[in-house]
Amino acid sequence: MRSTYFTPGPAELYPSVERHFREAFEQQIGSISHRSQRFRDLYQFADAQLRQLLQVPDYSAILFTSSANEIWERLLMNTVEEVSFHLVNGAFSEKLRDFSTQLGLRPITFQKPLGEGFFEQEIQLPAEVELLACTANETATGVQMRPEDIHALKRRYPQTLVTVDMVSSAPYPDLDLSLVDSAYFSVQKSFGMPAGLGVWIVSPTLLEKSKKIQAQTRSVGTYHSLPVLWKNYEKFETPETPNVLFIYVLGKVAEDMNRLGIKTIRQETEQKAKMLYDFLEETEGFAPAVKEIAHRSQTVVVADVPAPAPLLEKAKKQGLIIGSGYGAGKASQLRIANFPAVSQAQVAQLIEVLRTGI
Amino acid sequence: MRSTYFTPGPAELYPSVERHFREAFEQQIGSISHRSQRFRDLYQFADAQLRQLLQVPDYSAILFTSSANEIWERLLMNTVEEVSFHLVNGAFSEKLRDFSTQLGLRPITFQKPLGEGFFEQEIQLPAEVELLACTANETATGVQMRPEDIHALKRRYPQTLVTVDMVSSAPYPDLDLSLVDSAYFSVQKSFGMPAGLGVWIVSPTLLEKSKKIQAQTRSVGTYHSLPVLWKNYEKFETPETPNVLFIYVLGKVAEDMNRLGIKTIRQETEQKAKMLYDFLEETEGFAPAVKEIAHRSQTVVVADVPAPAPLLEKAKKQGLIIGSGYGAGKASQLRIANFPAVSQAQVAQLIEVLRTGI
Repeated sequence: MRSTYFTPGPAELYPSVERHFREAFEQQIGSISHRSQRFRDLYQFADAQLRQLLQVPDYSAILFTSSANEIWERLLMNTVEEVSFHLVNGAFSEKLRDFSTQLGLRPITFQKPLGEGFFEQEIQLPAEVELLACTANETATGVQMRPEDIHALKRRYPQTLVTVDMVSSAPYPDLDLSLVDSAYFSVQKSFGMPAGLGVWIVSPTLLEKSKKIQAQTRSVGTYHSLPVLWKNYEKFETPETPNVLFIYVLGKVAEDMNRLGIKTIRQETEQKAKMLYDFLEETEGFAPAVKEIAHRSQTVVVADVPAPAPLLEKAKKQGLIIGSGYGAGKASQLRIANFPAVSQAQVAQLIEVLRTGI
Repeated sequence: MRSTYFTPGPAELYPSVERHFREAFEQQIGSISHRSQRFRDLYQFADAQLRQLLQVPDYSAILFTSSANEIWERLLMNTVEEVSFHLVNGAFSEKLRDFSTQLGLRPITFQKPLGEGFFEQEIQLPAEVELLACTANETATGVQMRPEDIHALKRRYPQTLVTVDMVSSAPYPDLDLSLVDSAYFSVQKSFGMPAGLGVWIVSPTLLEKSKKIQAQTRSVGTYHSLPVLWKNYEKFETPETPNVLFIYVLGKVAEDMNRLGIKTIRQETEQKAKMLYDFLEETEGFAPAVKEIAHRSQTVVVADVPAPAPLLEKAKKQGLIIGSGYGAGKASQLRIANFPAVSQAQVAQLIEVLRTGI
């Protein structure tokens, strides 16, 4: 039986993904040279589609890595000499903070309890902060940070590099990429692809910082340092042999999303999220884990329940795979991914299965 | 028209690869959690098949990265405090040496002209060398280093970590992985898969060195430091969400190769290489670029020709894609990949097309 994955990454594949892979094999994309015009065209196509979908400004680069974890490491190595600032409210924002420590940097943490989020007004950055790390959607807890709060922070601290983790939210958040300095995501979440590709949107402010660190302070890496990535990007190439097949498929998925229109994708996401949150509010034995409405994620809905295991099991029998709570949340929460790959009808089906209890 | 790729990576796909991808989609491998038993089983399967194929000792780990470029960086960061030693005879062995410089280490180079290789007797390592980097097959020039020379070096310098770049040769070389400390390759060469996965075979000697550097000297990285990779490996997991789909397919390809038998694969490789070298020796206007027979690669055959472009064009019209020479070799060489994905009949067809001239 074919299941529907409501897991927050790896997740349900976007409906056209398998077809794009099939067509890639027909075109022998797996064998073409990454130094050929054909590859450059394919990178340029993905770049153009993502640029349109996410409204990436002309002067920013769209770089490919193997994962968001890799982007975390490259980001810190390339843009922080000493001090990064982290808004931590879950396992993933915390992990980026820990990377900073592991690299010998000095991270400053502003921490909220699990399930809570950040408003712009409560955040003060010490003068020495070089990079502010925001998380548009904390995948572990289903807490979002609204674009308006992120924008206000960048306006208040124009000299600080502001980066946004969009791992489990892009392309949903209406983030102004001409204002913030960098954003990134991996393709196995909202883009509904198999895992193995990270996408890093980088403004020249980061490149300049990286060059400065490299000239004055220390190594910023080798084949995936920002200067090397950027130089290759200028001719739509990559330093190493990249995941050509996935770059091709990502371009095609982004094209499909553009055909649908980002406005439609955002509206559908909000409609499906409303269905889920309404159900959690109205149904005995269920409650949204995030109390503050402004911080409820539209793409990963987390539910408090008395006993998750029987619900996971019941849904699984109906072919619906839900995510369990993350870490400590495993014993009391469900996580339901609300990505573009799942339809309103599928969300309605999931709600019906959960409603009828065990 | 479907072409046959004789390019040295990305290369012709192994005949079963497309089917394995199709079956992966049928099983929804692209959606499964990388923290599930299903993923751990799939990693363990790939591990077991590679272990059998390459005769990897029990105590060594088989780790996954995104590329061989990544392994170069991780290898140097994790195992060299100061001095690495590089046998350089082409663009790829040179690039690893350059990574060492870029990381602030002190590489020592023993260099040969393009087209020449190394015998064990001519190599002397200064006492301060921590890591010796050998290249089993220099993809740029088609020069091989024989396992017997690598083995002799490790026996002569038992305290030095010896690593082998098997990027465009594995599983062909009969390398004793219980003797050398590490070997690695990427899947888009001899394994005939699309690019996007690096495979790193690591003995505990490397792990110990990495822990020592981390404790005493400096950071060895974050999510892909050797201690973190190894800890996850112990439960057949990866630190980040990996390229699950490719790990699945690699396990299946390695299984196919085991069914065929490594002995058969080696024999067929040598037979096809002999066909190609005999043709180059016997045909006017062609000559093997590597003069020393002991150093002629069995997996990437490089030919000197007066004018490569018309030959590349002519073969292309017949649906046969040959690699051009690398770098300076572009104007005077052809590179012909002789990987397991191409059959004797296909090699014979290529030879016929080349023989009949322009």
